[in-house]
Amino acid sequence: MQCMKQKILNIETKGRGTYNITDKIQKVILENNIHTGLCHLFLQHTSASLILCENADPTVRIDLENFMARIAPDGDPVYQHDMEGPDDMPAHIRTILTQNSLTIPISNGRCVLGTWQDIYLWEHRTATHKRQLIITLQN
Amino acid sequence: MQCMKQKILNIETKGRGTYNITDKIQKVILENNIHTGLCHLFLQHTSASLILCENADPTVRIDLENFMARIAPDGDPVYQHDMEGPDDMPAHIRTILTQNSLTIPISNGRCVLGTWQDIYLWEHRTATHKRQLIITLQN
Amino acid sequence: MQCMKQKILNIETKGRGTYNITDKIQKVILENNIHTGLCHLFLQHTSASLILCENADPTVRIDLENFMARIAPDGDPVYQHDMEGPDDMPAHIRTILTQNSLTIPISNGRCVLGTWQDIYLWEHRTATHKRQLIITLQN
Repeated sequence: MQCMKQKILNIETKGRGTYNITDKIQKVILENNIHTGLCHLFLQHTSASLILCENADPTVRIDLENFMARIAPDGDPVYQHDMEGPDDMPAHIRTILTQNSLTIPISNGRCVLGTWQDIYLWEHRTATHKRQLIITLQN
Repeated sequence: MQCMKQKILNIETKGRGTYNITDKIQKVILENNIHTGLCHLFLQHTSASLILCENADPTVRIDLENFMARIAPDGDPVYQHDMEGPDDMPAHIRTILTQNSLTIPISNGRCVLGTWQDIYLWEHRTATHKRQLIITLQN
Repeated sequence: MQCMKQKILNIETKGRGTYNITDKIQKVILENNIHTGLCHLFLQHTSASLILCENADPTVRIDLENFMARIAPDGDPVYQHDMEGPDDMPAHIRTILTQNSLTIPISNGRCVLGTWQDIYLWEHRTATHKRQLIITLQN
């Protein structure tokens, strides 16, 4: 019998940077006993992303930060929207250029990520934030 | 019992800009009586996007337009593809950098968007266009 | 009765460029006899993407390559991560700016793509690569 299960995960970030959430997600799949299916992750925010990123060399994620800082620099005077500070509008641009939702296949009770793929929450704001992630599992 | 329902929504745009389609989507979910599930939105075009964007301050969307105009300017002589005018190739680039499909969780009969999230159709062509959106609902 | 079917597709690329995989995907849907549903495609890599791109004029895809080469050039000395050569970090950036997963509605036994939409695997590495694509079909 097929089913659809939803769960909310609260993740606290320590400001801008990438946070590996793969283990948290695999644990939820295991707890819900899903053998084959799909795992949908949805971040309820417009200033943080979900990415599948290379997990072996941390300089990849440093280079990604630097890339984003180059194309959408903090405090750029061209932005009209800066109510919450110099990182406000860049955070929205970074989110639009990436994704705040991911769908990953489940096989043998786990997200079937590639060898070099892990799931990261990418916080784009410089301050600590509480982020809410909705996980929907289907089999 | 689980089900999968499909519906086509026709949306006419008045040219480049963002169009809030959240109410249209919530209405379809309500009409189909889906309590818990997933809502998949698919735009059948390569020159318009679907984004989840900050809904409180309209200058966010102005800054996003300006950002795209800066990295992929209309009429840039580097483009080989300009059959349909100066906004033709930039529209494809903007679509590739964003998404033409979104999956959003449904809970309590509604898309569970964050407080600041709304669903926008982002028209990248300068002229009026008729856009076709396929909605697939699962529970 | 609803079902979820998974299949792995191995695709060999001849290096950087776009590869039209639409026929391969439509064939899998046909073989699995799915009339109405969703097709989820997932690439198990962090240096190649899946895009829905304009299929009529090949210069669109040339312009997309040139755009990416401009914003994330090969061999840029700003990259710290260059273990696998000058195209290593640009391949990760290009993947993050696009997507390595797509969900497409199925209707009447086929992915319901728009007139100008086809599904492309976008190889971002310059050398030949073997890419693994996981297809999950739902009805």
